Amino acid sequence: MSYKIHFSNRGHAYTEDEIRIATDAMRSADPLTQGRFRNSFEEKFTSFLGNDRKCFALCNATAGLEIAAMLCRFQPGDEFIIPSHTFTASCYPFIKKGGTPVWADIDPETRVANAQTFARLISSRTRAIVVVHLYGFVADMPEIMELAEKHNLLVVEDSAQAIGAELSGRKAGTFGDFGIFSFHSHKNITTLGEGGMLAVKDPSLASLVPMLRHNGHCDFNFARQDYWLPAMGNVDLPELDGIPLMPNNFCLGEVECALGTALLDRINAINRDRRRRALAFIDGLQDYPEIVFHRVDSDRHIYHLLVGKAIGNIRDEFIRRMALNKGIQCVVQYYPLNRYDLYRKLGFGYADCPQGDDLFDNMISFPFHQWMTEEQFAYMLQSAREVLNEIRQR
Amino acid sequence: MSYKIHFSNRGHAYTEDEIRIATDAMRSADPLTQGRFRNSFEEKFTSFLGNDRKCFALCNATAGLEIAAMLCRFQPGDEFIIPSHTFTASCYPFIKKGGTPVWADIDPETRVANAQTFARLISSRTRAIVVVHLYGFVADMPEIMELAEKHNLLVVEDSAQAIGAELSGRKAGTFGDFGIFSFHSHKNITTLGEGGMLAVKDPSLASLVPMLRHNGHCDFNFARQDYWLPAMGNVDLPELDGIPLMPNNFCLGEVECALGTALLDRINAINRDRRRRALAFIDGLQDYPEIVFHRVDSDRHIYHLLVGKAIGNIRDEFIRRMALNKGIQCVVQYYPLNRYDLYRKLGFGYADCPQGDDLFDNMISFPFHQWMTEEQFAYMLQSAREVLNEIRQR
Repeated sequence: MSYKIHFSNRGHAYTEDEIRIATDAMRSADPLTQGRFRNSFEEKFTSFLGNDRKCFALCNATAGLEIAAMLCRFQPGDEFIIPSHTFTASCYPFIKKGGTPVWADIDPETRVANAQTFARLISSRTRAIVVVHLYGFVADMPEIMELAEKHNLLVVEDSAQAIGAELSGRKAGTFGDFGIFSFHSHKNITTLGEGGMLAVKDPSLASLVPMLRHNGHCDFNFARQDYWLPAMGNVDLPELDGIPLMPNNFCLGEVECALGTALLDRINAINRDRRRRALAFIDGLQDYPEIVFHRVDSDRHIYHLLVGKAIGNIRDEFIRRMALNKGIQCVVQYYPLNRYDLYRKLGFGYADCPQGDDLFDNMISFPFHQWMTEEQFAYMLQSAREVLNEIRQR
Repeated sequence: MSYKIHFSNRGHAYTEDEIRIATDAMRSADPLTQGRFRNSFEEKFTSFLGNDRKCFALCNATAGLEIAAMLCRFQPGDEFIIPSHTFTASCYPFIKKGGTPVWADIDPETRVANAQTFARLISSRTRAIVVVHLYGFVADMPEIMELAEKHNLLVVEDSAQAIGAELSGRKAGTFGDFGIFSFHSHKNITTLGEGGMLAVKDPSLASLVPMLRHNGHCDFNFARQDYWLPAMGNVDLPELDGIPLMPNNFCLGEVECALGTALLDRINAINRDRRRRALAFIDGLQDYPEIVFHRVDSDRHIYHLLVGKAIGNIRDEFIRRMALNKGIQCVVQYYPLNRYDLYRKLGFGYADCPQGDDLFDNMISFPFHQWMTEEQFAYMLQSAREVLNEIRQR
């Protein structure tokens, strides 16, 4: 059907300046990949994160998670703990690279896992914790890092939805060993629909990433007299703890990098704008306890999504009435991973995650693209009120 | 150093129309990935290839080779035969997916492997042949297909450099089981520096590609009454011959796809222009037998590169004089794969490929980006003549 307000997977529009930056790169970039724009983007992102992480631009965030998973060096039987309530790309790269998932539940208020929900799953087989700052909210990283240090665990921060979110003055993605960011179409900033960034804490692990990203390309480990002898460059096999890691091609193009660099100037404003609207919507429904929101009026939440949890088994009725009566396409996100056929077939179909299940089964995710007009936004708020009134009067 | 003519890794410039098409997509695409522009690009590419292949747009050609490698279903010990004289991304995806490379030599005239150089390496362990249409020249596909059919081998056509090249009215990439095309920065057409296409012959194998490309996303295998129940979509595990294949995220964005669609209108003209120039250069050096070229005045060669082979051990002297005296950056490409550290460390360091070695050790690859001016091109030809004259008079 055709909606008045559809659930867009495009997070934001580009300014004319940003379009000009992209077209300038289209005209001038030589080469069009792996050049100066990539270097600038990585340098600026490093600075954005606070200068203590080495950053690598990648074709998407899944590629970042896959490289992080390779660098986790899972041995047979090694487990990683991850919330079942997340996007599938948070998880499957770690299975590909040899890890066994253990499903953590979420905190019902914050909707992300916390130190307690992780702690109860730690065993002698646990190798890593995958924290997901879902919805744009930074999980309880100080407590989680304390837990990880106590048990000598690697920490991956899937910050795909949380670029620029902060806790105690530190950015999401800079607490653990690996921080992964997404510039996918739906995200708060997007590099033409696809793109990602991997931030790595340990310099020795970071030194492997260029080869893992780009076909194993590297310099020769000796000085050459002529630039073409013995060849233009070497291709080597990255190794970690004596184990070879096969390379990938996870490169991001120069136009995307030029655009991403420009968007970093705007990410904080976009995040503030999203939070302003989210809070207005949440407050606008404060007389309707039938939908519960996670209200955070600080940089800790950048509101990548606007998600309510319906109380009293009214979710499906609400979404149906919003769609049919108001032309507004609400959706439901983050099918608990253990319910998907992929995870069931791999033997990971059972999870003891009542809070994640309960959130999913009652979730209403409202259209929340930044380019929605104020008029549309006001119409959505008014429509939600009216639909809730209708349901009350059933 | 700064060159008058550098070896650019950017193949071509964009027209103002193409830039407008990209900016239109930047403004209008919703979503910015996996939407209608991807569908149009794939449909048009299918038509471009002659309508008997299912085509899939990907983040790069390596991703296409990796998916093809997964679909080859290598068992332990299975071999694939591939020329040692190629780019590393032609090969390593097949090693990642379990194949053992066997190095084929090239035909010294055409510079690609042929049925004879493949045939002598076929054993009971051979599973696949990876044909590389290197430089833009279509290998002897009818003979190679006859050989493959006789031995029941899969055939992968790495057509990264040969988009639009034809043999007997058939396009490169449409003879074998898999055809892979590249839109990398350096290629005859480029989708903003990164991009690729995978063409698949067998519809049942093709049906797995969408899931292998995009996180395992798929529809539920039952009709749903409400679009959000039980979830917005399923994630499943692709399986082939009962063996699960883990998915990837190999998506190409909408702006790239819109641009790629437009570039298909221009690829034949670009290829003709490249061939015209290559033939002019080759003919302009016909009085200099010190450099041998592969001259093909037909659609079978689209001259992705302009490569000569020096005779009489003058290669290094020639490149040095071109660089230092003329400011022209010639390069040397396709270090025999067995010489790279990656392949040596994996145990594939030996190859009996004298022709590939000889070509590499005497190769001169001239700057050949399409956006080189006619004046630069004439200067390069004149400089080559002068340098050869200098070398004669040593």
